[in-house]
Amino acid sequence: MTASRDRAVIVGIGESPYARWGGIADRSQFALACEAILNAAADAGLPPSAIDGFASYSDDANDPARLMVALGIDQLRFASMVWGGGGGGSCGALAHAAAAVESGQATAVAVFRGLCQGQSFRFGQYHAWSPDAAFTAPFGLFAPAQMFALLARRHMHLHGTTSEQFAEVALVCRDNARRNPRAVMHGRPLSLEDHQASRMIADPLRLFDCCLESDGAAAVIVTTAERARDLKTRPVHVLAARQGSSKGWGSGMLGGHNMPDEIYATGNARVMAGELYGRAGVTPEEIDVAQLYDAFTATVIFSLEDFGFCGVGEGGPFAADGNLRWPDGRLPVNTAGGNLSEAYIHGFNLVVEGVRQLRGQSTSQVADARLCLVSGGGSVTPTSAAILGV
Amino acid sequence: MTASRDRAVIVGIGESPYARWGGIADRSQFALACEAILNAAADAGLPPSAIDGFASYSDDANDPARLMVALGIDQLRFASMVWGGGGGGSCGALAHAAAAVESGQATAVAVFRGLCQGQSFRFGQYHAWSPDAAFTAPFGLFAPAQMFALLARRHMHLHGTTSEQFAEVALVCRDNARRNPRAVMHGRPLSLEDHQASRMIADPLRLFDCCLESDGAAAVIVTTAERARDLKTRPVHVLAARQGSSKGWGSGMLGGHNMPDEIYATGNARVMAGELYGRAGVTPEEIDVAQLYDAFTATVIFSLEDFGFCGVGEGGPFAADGNLRWPDGRLPVNTAGGNLSEAYIHGFNLVVEGVRQLRGQSTSQVADARLCLVSGGGSVTPTSAAILGV
Repeated sequence: MTASRDRAVIVGIGESPYARWGGIADRSQFALACEAILNAAADAGLPPSAIDGFASYSDDANDPARLMVALGIDQLRFASMVWGGGGGGSCGALAHAAAAVESGQATAVAVFRGLCQGQSFRFGQYHAWSPDAAFTAPFGLFAPAQMFALLARRHMHLHGTTSEQFAEVALVCRDNARRNPRAVMHGRPLSLEDHQASRMIADPLRLFDCCLESDGAAAVIVTTAERARDLKTRPVHVLAARQGSSKGWGSGMLGGHNMPDEIYATGNARVMAGELYGRAGVTPEEIDVAQLYDAFTATVIFSLEDFGFCGVGEGGPFAADGNLRWPDGRLPVNTAGGNLSEAYIHGFNLVVEGVRQLRGQSTSQVADARLCLVSGGGSVTPTSAAILGV
Repeated sequence: MTASRDRAVIVGIGESPYARWGGIADRSQFALACEAILNAAADAGLPPSAIDGFASYSDDANDPARLMVALGIDQLRFASMVWGGGGGGSCGALAHAAAAVESGQATAVAVFRGLCQGQSFRFGQYHAWSPDAAFTAPFGLFAPAQMFALLARRHMHLHGTTSEQFAEVALVCRDNARRNPRAVMHGRPLSLEDHQASRMIADPLRLFDCCLESDGAAAVIVTTAERARDLKTRPVHVLAARQGSSKGWGSGMLGGHNMPDEIYATGNARVMAGELYGRAGVTPEEIDVAQLYDAFTATVIFSLEDFGFCGVGEGGPFAADGNLRWPDGRLPVNTAGGNLSEAYIHGFNLVVEGVRQLRGQSTSQVADARLCLVSGGGSVTPTSAAILGV
């Protein structure tokens, strides 16, 4: 693939080790973030001092002022936090980095997410996500599982989606994790019976419908196609990266459930998807592999519909028909195990895996993968997605 | 001036009323932010629903998810917070918006800052700005005045700068506020004797060396030159907008004072200034008017040097020679009164006044102003600046 010289490309990927929540006791979240960024720079063949921008999301605690000291950076030209993002900010941060290099404000932006919930707070426990909590907490909407449970139930009600269909997403992720030694759930197989017997967290979401809680960090280095020519790695093109948002119904935040049928599940992501494909100049049929934000199994089902891989309401059967399976499904998803079985790095590990697929380096490699769609979370503002290509 | 069709321009400016801290008791900070954004959209001739991006800084509390509901926005395509910014983020947020529209991610970005310190916390009181406070608070560095006092004293020690020279900045701002009915200090003249007799806040900074504490909000609308053709206002070109940073000495944060002489005052802003002029294709000599971040009088003196309006160490005499005075000085500054005498909107009112100058609408209008430099604060990461032109 050839792209305009001034368009954004990813030239480096890096990760810290991934572990279950509290599993990395000897290093701080900050140290893990530095490790991921250093690994990404080394992968790109760039000295860390060449990084002149940082982008992250969801109030990442690893402040750029401290990162630049730790990493020996002389001049920081861009420091951006996706504003208002939950996990939906992952591809939004990538989009910010692309905007920075494409507009000439920075030359090499490290996009990353570092997360040790045990060192800050556990997302799965109660937290007043926004002032809207005054309207939702009294009705029992405390944790994300409770908020997403309503969306899952609505999908079941409207379209006949079943718990077994949600389970298929969990099984696909676990199967992919089986081949990925970095995955927290590597070596821990999961069956449909295990899923169905697992305890209810927030009806209809069972334990294995919920993502992991993990320690770790992931990063990529974004620069322009022109600058990438001097580097040793094969660049992966950011054909499109966009933020989108819930339409102005309800609060636009987690827990805002008074949205009409066409947008309740992933908050207007369909509009964003259309713009994303338009920008990239590709269609859903051309996508070879996808990394879909999987805070819960149900969100993958929603995303399949919003991004046009199947019709509205057909996400459940599409999954159950084996379309998400590696290696023979129409659209293998979350090929490193995703947030459900590799690690919960707030979706940023999905970006890293997307790059890996297009380099031919995945442990569940899709043959001749040329186009990968990566999505951030839905149902919060902003959501985000990207189309990567080689 | 003609610029490339896809480059960023400012097409609307808006403000809420400005008042002293706690002076707007009947409206929330959120309401003021909405008012400023709505005024900016109206000024541009755009319906508020046409806004598809927000950019702000310094952890502005007016969340884009709530703003989009309040303003009736269907789809938000860009939501960015300058990361790590204090007042230094003002032009950084402008830079983010420019990157968004120049890279095609959004079409009309509202850049703003809403601030009612009485509704959140007073910057002038103690706050653990960062983990670095563990190293600075024990030595009495609690509030910004104490942190900047060391920088001012160092400048006096190195260059013989005097309190009377700092005072000139305060007098210039107050004189400009005399002509600006929106200014909080309108109708309240200030003399050198008043300044010298005012109480010491943090030696050598006296009361009138310190900015106001205010309630208010300010906003601009950024789009591309091509889209601006359809709008009623004369576009002001963002010739350059950049973030910069303290070099990797010390913490890079407020209170990090172990920096070498060439960067201690405004944290490597000289490097950023060079890149800014290069991007805009202009020289300091061509700048007609400047809006320089004035959290304290001393920061204006520092900025005069860093942005090349005078030599290093010559900022004090340059000011004392009347160069900053309207209308006859070489470089009139802070022509609406600045943060010292118009209002402390964390420097974003300086961006609005910069646009006003280039439209010929200032109450202290510089004749035939074609180029305006606006700076964010220094000594924190990031600092930022912009060159606007018509």
